[in-house]
Amino acid sequence: MTATPSAPKSEQPGRIMAREMAEQPAVLRRLLDTGAPRIHEVARLIAAQAPRFVLLTARGTSDNAALYAKYLLEIQLGMPCGLASMSTTTAYGARPDLRDVLAVTVSQSGGSPDLVASTKAARAAGAITLAVTNNPDSPLAAVSEHHIDIMAGPEKALPATKTYTASLLALYLFVEGLRGGDGSPADVLPGLAQQLLDRQDEVRTLASRYRFANRMVITSRGYGYPTAKEAALKLMETSYIPALSYSGADLLHGPLAMVDNISPVIAVVTDGKGGSMLQPVLDRLRGRGADLVVIGPEAQVDRASAGFVLPTEGVAEEVQPVLEIIPLQLLAYEVTIARGQDPDAPRALAKVTETH
Amino acid sequence: MTATPSAPKSEQPGRIMAREMAEQPAVLRRLLDTGAPRIHEVARLIAAQAPRFVLLTARGTSDNAALYAKYLLEIQLGMPCGLASMSTTTAYGARPDLRDVLAVTVSQSGGSPDLVASTKAARAAGAITLAVTNNPDSPLAAVSEHHIDIMAGPEKALPATKTYTASLLALYLFVEGLRGGDGSPADVLPGLAQQLLDRQDEVRTLASRYRFANRMVITSRGYGYPTAKEAALKLMETSYIPALSYSGADLLHGPLAMVDNISPVIAVVTDGKGGSMLQPVLDRLRGRGADLVVIGPEAQVDRASAGFVLPTEGVAEEVQPVLEIIPLQLLAYEVTIARGQDPDAPRALAKVTETH
Repeated sequence: MTATPSAPKSEQPGRIMAREMAEQPAVLRRLLDTGAPRIHEVARLIAAQAPRFVLLTARGTSDNAALYAKYLLEIQLGMPCGLASMSTTTAYGARPDLRDVLAVTVSQSGGSPDLVASTKAARAAGAITLAVTNNPDSPLAAVSEHHIDIMAGPEKALPATKTYTASLLALYLFVEGLRGGDGSPADVLPGLAQQLLDRQDEVRTLASRYRFANRMVITSRGYGYPTAKEAALKLMETSYIPALSYSGADLLHGPLAMVDNISPVIAVVTDGKGGSMLQPVLDRLRGRGADLVVIGPEAQVDRASAGFVLPTEGVAEEVQPVLEIIPLQLLAYEVTIARGQDPDAPRALAKVTETH
Repeated sequence: MTATPSAPKSEQPGRIMAREMAEQPAVLRRLLDTGAPRIHEVARLIAAQAPRFVLLTARGTSDNAALYAKYLLEIQLGMPCGLASMSTTTAYGARPDLRDVLAVTVSQSGGSPDLVASTKAARAAGAITLAVTNNPDSPLAAVSEHHIDIMAGPEKALPATKTYTASLLALYLFVEGLRGGDGSPADVLPGLAQQLLDRQDEVRTLASRYRFANRMVITSRGYGYPTAKEAALKLMETSYIPALSYSGADLLHGPLAMVDNISPVIAVVTDGKGGSMLQPVLDRLRGRGADLVVIGPEAQVDRASAGFVLPTEGVAEEVQPVLEIIPLQLLAYEVTIARGQDPDAPRALAKVTETH
């Protein structure tokens, strides 16, 4: 591990993170307007190589974007997928047979040496390699056969926000390209993202509830599960509140014991099959007297202790994750400010984590 | 979700869990002596079907056993693997093309309806299906083409212990069978497991340190990572302490901000490549003044705040997970007793979790 320069100090705490969150509508719009044709072309080339399995490799926030892609690939394309355990190649020297395998590496910086090494190894093992990064000049882009640029512009705050939503949209457009879809369900996203950002006051009210929390549980199911994981990561790395994320089904296998009337639970309820599958979990949580905050459709928020209503009219379930995370990014920001900390520069973190 | 009868009440708190942990050497011995030939035969049949990709499906404790199998399959066999996101089939109706795919479902009870449904769907989609359960008469065993019986005997305590170590050993023997190994590195396990159980007093001393903890972080890398996840689950479901598990590399991507001098960290250090890869993470943790407890080789424990020394002489890295978890099971038990709770019957849990 190599020490890297710490992030620029903000004059006002959270100024950089706030600015980058606010850029999201423009970033999504740019990707739709000018990135989409190139993403479509990459998808066309990869479809012609006829992969049968997909392995996704990433860390941190990008790992949650990769998990979203896994849901898309399995549900929309019926393609079996796995998230790679990177150490099997980088530490143990595994040399798997990766013919017919598409190896997708997602990394904001494209600079982490272990991601570069594992992508090289995958390519040498016969995989079709695709890097999804925010830097077309990165070492990761250079070693990959294909590259998708998420075009989010430089990200300076340590907590990744705009690169997360941009990665989700880029991966969505890529899968649309693979399956011959036109990606039009994404057209509503920039406008709706702006509407969500305009409701920061509502999030600030919600944040006051967590100012003294010493743990949180975040749950979801289906397409919303990557959102739950990313929200937990965002809360932890900014506010330092231990935030545990579980798929609703896994929550019932053990961790539910931990939830009681003083343990706050946030449920990310997508409008669609993911949300329906989560209903029994929500019933159990209500039955245990949990403080349940719902991020989701109005009818779901009405039945919870509190919440944040997401727009659902005309928003396909598979693109909802791009929106769902926005109030949760704002929540991480507001909780951190309320606790007197600086969301821009969490202690101990470097922007490019050089794991080897 | 269906309510299931709660576990039998213990006269002494933890009596049932204690008995089942104590059975582990005998369970491992039985599996080696009488289970191994049948597991070998299943492996031979499956190897003849020439799978190219493995999808593992499980929940809770079994999911951690499945993750161990993923490391084995990737490292020992070079076979790309993924952990299935079950809701993609059960909620979203994905019908992937699973020709050349081995679909392994791990479930202690073999009774969870969603596992049965997803295994049926995998078989219909062309997969070679293998169920690994503690009940050869279970619905899951019935719908799978192949079955491995982990032969652990009935498990009554809600926290799974002997079925976890038995699943690990069964999966190890299966992978050995696939690759034509003789499985002899496992021969030392029953005797060493007994030696670990005999050191419960040491664990009790360690447990006193966590009596008032309100969060814990557990980390590892490589083969030890499933152990970290299982230890976190065990601690949460018995003591209700929020225990967060991270691979060492992921810990540096965000959650490290959460660790300070009052946040206890447990590191599971395997003797081998996994432990070597964890060194920079341990250095960072020491640098942050974390209360670091190491479960691992003597030299590693000596450099930590406290720890539990594991036997390493003559123990191959790939079988160490079967041993590593034992002091951590004991720790979950002792911390729970110290906090005045009953490890046998955590609130809110049913032994068979009927997620649909």
